[in-house]
Formats: sequence, structure tokens, C-alpha cells
Amino acid sequence: MNSRRASPHQAGKEPAASTSPWRASRERRREVKREAVIRAAARAFNRKGYHNTSLDDIAATLEVTKPTVYYYVSNKEQLLFQCFLAGVEQIRAAFREVKDLEAPARERLNAVLRHYGEAVASEFGWCMVRAEDQDLSPAMSRHIKALKSEIDQGIRRLIREGVQDGSIERCDPKMTAFALAGALNWIAHWYRESQSLTGAEIAEAFVTIFEGGLRPRSASQVATRAPLRRRVRIAR
Amino acid sequence: MNSRRASPHQAGKEPAASTSPWRASRERRREVKREAVIRAAARAFNRKGYHNTSLDDIAATLEVTKPTVYYYVSNKEQLLFQCFLAGVEQIRAAFREVKDLEAPARERLNAVLRHYGEAVASEFGWCMVRAEDQDLSPAMSRHIKALKSEIDQGIRRLIREGVQDGSIERCDPKMTAFALAGALNWIAHWYRESQSLTGAEIAEAFVTIFEGGLRPRSASQVATRAPLRRRVRIAR
Repeated sequence: MNSRRASPHQAGKEPAASTSPWRASRERRREVKREAVIRAAARAFNRKGYHNTSLDDIAATLEVTKPTVYYYVSNKEQLLFQCFLAGVEQIRAAFREVKDLEAPARERLNAVLRHYGEAVASEFGWCMVRAEDQDLSPAMSRHIKALKSEIDQGIRRLIREGVQDGSIERCDPKMTAFALAGALNWIAHWYRESQSLTGAEIAEAFVTIFEGGLRPRSASQVATRAPLRRRVRIAR
Repeated sequence: MNSRRASPHQAGKEPAASTSPWRASRERRREVKREAVIRAAARAFNRKGYHNTSLDDIAATLEVTKPTVYYYVSNKEQLLFQCFLAGVEQIRAAFREVKDLEAPARERLNAVLRHYGEAVASEFGWCMVRAEDQDLSPAMSRHIKALKSEIDQGIRRLIREGVQDGSIERCDPKMTAFALAGALNWIAHWYRESQSLTGAEIAEAFVTIFEGGLRPRSASQVATRAPLRRRVRIAR
């Protein structure tokens, strides 16, 4: 799997543990197919928009019938949500990975922002940043808002921690979090996979730019540590 | 007029000069009404989306008939374009204003970004950042893309000038321009006029955040000059 691709598998629940290898294999095959449905949907939504994409279109791409698609997701809204979750889950996983690290908060924040940027540059980026605009049911909108808010609060918390531990210049955590997330979210509007840089390279370039603003100015001459990237790998 | 409001008047051509005060007055009244149509459209698009808004809705808001609306704009696409232009014109005006100033490029860039932020936080913000996604005619899409590209290139140019004159830390001008514009564009997604900060205050907060990253690190102890804001005023 391309390193820029998240597994939609991460977005759903793990298949229930089974003692039968035959059954486990069936479950794995089902999961692989479910991932293919979500990935095909993400690409179609990205290319044609949510309202212009039908489950028939997605079925045709996968060379299956519409009932086969329904076997994996109950409706188009659920499909959009699974695409949203596949992207967002990469950021949530990054937060979990850095949670107990002893590194300064700026390095932990950078690791999260790097995964955030990669997720937005992936095929799930459009769904991550545009899902909320698609006339979804109130329950679904609330769910998406809650997950976005969790990420926003997580970024603000890391900024506050960084200001406290001296690794981040004093700033307004709320506005800074909005500026960082906005710059990253906007990648979904301009980035195309055909461009010369990979999603990972774009994310790295953005983290370098952010670093310039976040790093305390008095510490500019202090030698920087090796990027946290080499130490934190999100399991895929 | 509220200082956060751009005049849609700026977006169109000036009425032809006239020697008759009666005629000039008629032209001014027409322009005021045209502005009201554009502002009402911007608010409706923002609230309900472009495709969910009809010219009937806009006419109803203004308590006029649909033919009256057609007297000012030829169709809904043109209306969206005028809303787009009303926002974008504020940024273009800022570029023109700073063009011949002797100030360091970072200060000129800050002045442009301040007006950019205010425009995105205005009622034209939604149209500025979302017009391109609305299935417009190829000619209209090209026109919008060209204006966006002009602004992008203008920001990159100021960044390059800043790196050259020493007022901006060395950076990748293209990626930095994308990060700055992305952070500002995203304001249209989260800012509501009901919030505690005005658009001007949001724009100022963002420029302060950007400053932290743009300012050369070796110059951090140098006393900063008075913000350019007080010297540059965009005529409205």
C-alpha cells in the first residue's frame, strides 16, 4: 500500500476476534472489500462531488452491483461518513501515538500536523474538509462536528502545553489552531496527486513553515533535535 | 457603511462620467440598488448554498420582483461572480495601494493579508472561496481561476521580495503563499458575524500569527515599526 494511503479499515471497528482461521480469513476478505468500496467512494466524491455521485457510479467503478455496495454500507451518507472517518482517524491515531511521549509539545504537535497534512492530501481529504457542507442528517452533522472539535481541542491543548514547556512561542492557542488547521485543510482544495510533490512532502513542507512561527524566538540558536517523524510511526 | 463591508460597487465598472447632476444621481441610485442585490445574493449563497438559492429568493429578500433583479445582473452565475469579485477586489485594491510604498516587503505583505482576512470574514467570503466549486461555465471558471492566480502570484512576489530585502525569513515562496492563503480562506468556513471578534480583529490576529513565522529570526530583537495599517487605508 502506498505510504500516503490510509487504510479505511482503521476507520471502522476491528473484525471480532475469531478462533477459526477460515472465519478470520472470510472476515479479512470482507474488510478488504469494504475498504475498496470506501476508497472508490472517496475518489468519486472528490472528483464529482457528493450530490453528483450515486451508489450506482461507485458500484460501476468496482464492477459490482448496487446491492453488493449496500452489503458494506447502509446508504450514501454512511459512505461519506466512512470516508470522512478514514481521513480523520489518521489524525486521531497520531494524537494517541504522541500522547505519552516525553518529547516537547512542539515536536508532538508537529507529528500530529504531519499526519494531518498527509490525510488531507490523501483521497480522503475532500471528504474530511467538505463532508459537513453536504446537507447531512442532523445526527450525522453532530457526529462530524464532534470529531472535528476533538481534533481542534487536541491541537489547542498541544499548543498550550508547548507554551508552558517553552517549546512554543507565546500565542493565542485558539487562533493559532485555526490558522494551522486552515492552512492544512486548504490542501484538499489545491493538491492533486498528479503534482510533483507527494502528500507526505507537502505535509513536511507545511510543518517546516509552521515551525518558523511556533519555535520560541529566543531559542532560535538552540540546536534542534532529530525530527520526531523518525521515532513516531503510525501503524497502518 | 460598516468598515468590514466592501462596496460591491468596487467590483463593477464605475458608472460613466456624466455632466448632468440629474443623470449622475440616477446612476448613483442604480449603483446603490445593484450593490443591494449583490449583498443580498452573497448573504443568501452563504446561508443556503449557491444551488439552493434562486433569484426569486433574492428578489423576495429585497421585496422586489425577479425582473427587477434581472435589471441589475443577467443571470445567477453572473451574480455569484459579482459577489466573488466584491471580495477579491478588496485584496486587489490592497495590492495596488502597497505597490509603490517604500516599506519593507513584509509590511506590504501584512497589509495585503490583513485586507485578505477581512474580505474572507465579510459576507463575500463564502463566494470568494467557494465560487469555483459551483459547476460554473468554463469561461467563468477560467475567469475566477485567473483572478485567484493573480492574487497567489502577488503574495509569492511579496514573499520573494521580503526574502531579498531581509524582512522575511528564507522560505519556499509557493508553499508559504499556499499556507497563508489557506489559513485565511478557511476563515470563511468557521467565522460567523455573531462571534465575539469582528472580521478586522480576526484578520489582525492572523497577521500577528503569520508575523511570528515570517519575521527573520536574527532580527527578533530589532524594534518593530508601527504597523503599516495606520498608513495604508484602502479607499472605500
